[in-house]
Amino acid sequence: MIIIGVDPGTLISGYGIIERKNTSFAVLDVGIIKNSSAESMPLRLRKIYSSLSAVIETFHPDEFAIETAFYHKNAQSALKIGQARGVSILAGVNFEVPITEYSPREVKKAVTGNGAASKEQVQYMIMSMLNILSKPKHFDSTDALAVAMCHAFKISVPRSKFKNWKSFIEANPDRVLSLKRNRRQ
Amino acid sequence: MIIIGVDPGTLISGYGIIERKNTSFAVLDVGIIKNSSAESMPLRLRKIYSSLSAVIETFHPDEFAIETAFYHKNAQSALKIGQARGVSILAGVNFEVPITEYSPREVKKAVTGNGAASKEQVQYMIMSMLNILSKPKHFDSTDALAVAMCHAFKISVPRSKFKNWKSFIEANPDRVLSLKRNRRQ
Repeated sequence: MIIIGVDPGTLISGYGIIERKNTSFAVLDVGIIKNSSAESMPLRLRKIYSSLSAVIETFHPDEFAIETAFYHKNAQSALKIGQARGVSILAGVNFEVPITEYSPREVKKAVTGNGAASKEQVQYMIMSMLNILSKPKHFDSTDALAVAMCHAFKISVPRSKFKNWKSFIEANPDRVLSLKRNRRQ
Repeated sequence: MIIIGVDPGTLISGYGIIERKNTSFAVLDVGIIKNSSAESMPLRLRKIYSSLSAVIETFHPDEFAIETAFYHKNAQSALKIGQARGVSILAGVNFEVPITEYSPREVKKAVTGNGAASKEQVQYMIMSMLNILSKPKHFDSTDALAVAMCHAFKISVPRSKFKNWKSFIEANPDRVLSLKRNRRQ
């Protein structure tokens, strides 16, 4: 399963793509989308959207996890972050990727065990869990990997289980058909 | 000149398209994009984006005007409106339409002369200026027409003027050429 984690911002957005195979994880890609403060907001939003769309088109993630914004006291900064979040979510939903949101507290708790962990602690845990040897320049990229890892932990329990063979057969009638065909041959 | 005005919201977004010909205005289209509160935020954002994109693709506006959100004291609602604004702006910028923002106060002042006008007053003025006979059901659609009209008033002074015939001829060499041809005939 491939998961993209996104930590959106109008100046720096972080993204990280991880692949889970059973109990092990690998980083497929990690990076930031950087905007200049001299650029207009529409152009910044377009860059975030088009860059994230390109990443999603390349890696075809099965799941999209995004951090809910830190609720600033300042409503204007919440509005700006909202715009960056809006176009990030749109990039995911346009590719039909299921989207899940996590609060910063949930992400920190899932990754470090402590909902009030510092950015350095989150970075340290992410680097050690994902065998990242060189320290990323921006916390935004490790934060993005952290939200992807948080989602990987949360969905590690299968969403739907078959209780017995009868329920499995009922849910997969096409497989039974192929079995009959094999018998006839 | 065709102008689209947008009043974004996660549940109801209003849009209005006006055409200015010299000093008269005509409404080309006006409507709302309605979302159910039962729908997830990603699907709501996608609907706003795709609906606005379709409207822009149909009418090819030259200008895009959007209301800056009313700054709620509640940062969470500012965040939500930010998301709806983000995808609305993206729809404009993806079609290379220049985007201008106006505060609710600027819009009210431009349309009614009073920056603290009520929604009813704005609606009344918009209906009388644009010869709209039946009262629109939602204020969001008249608010969207109001921001489009505000933009039309603000850019009514030509951005570049020709000082004299010499500068006009320099800027329009093709027109001079056609005059010479006529003389030869």
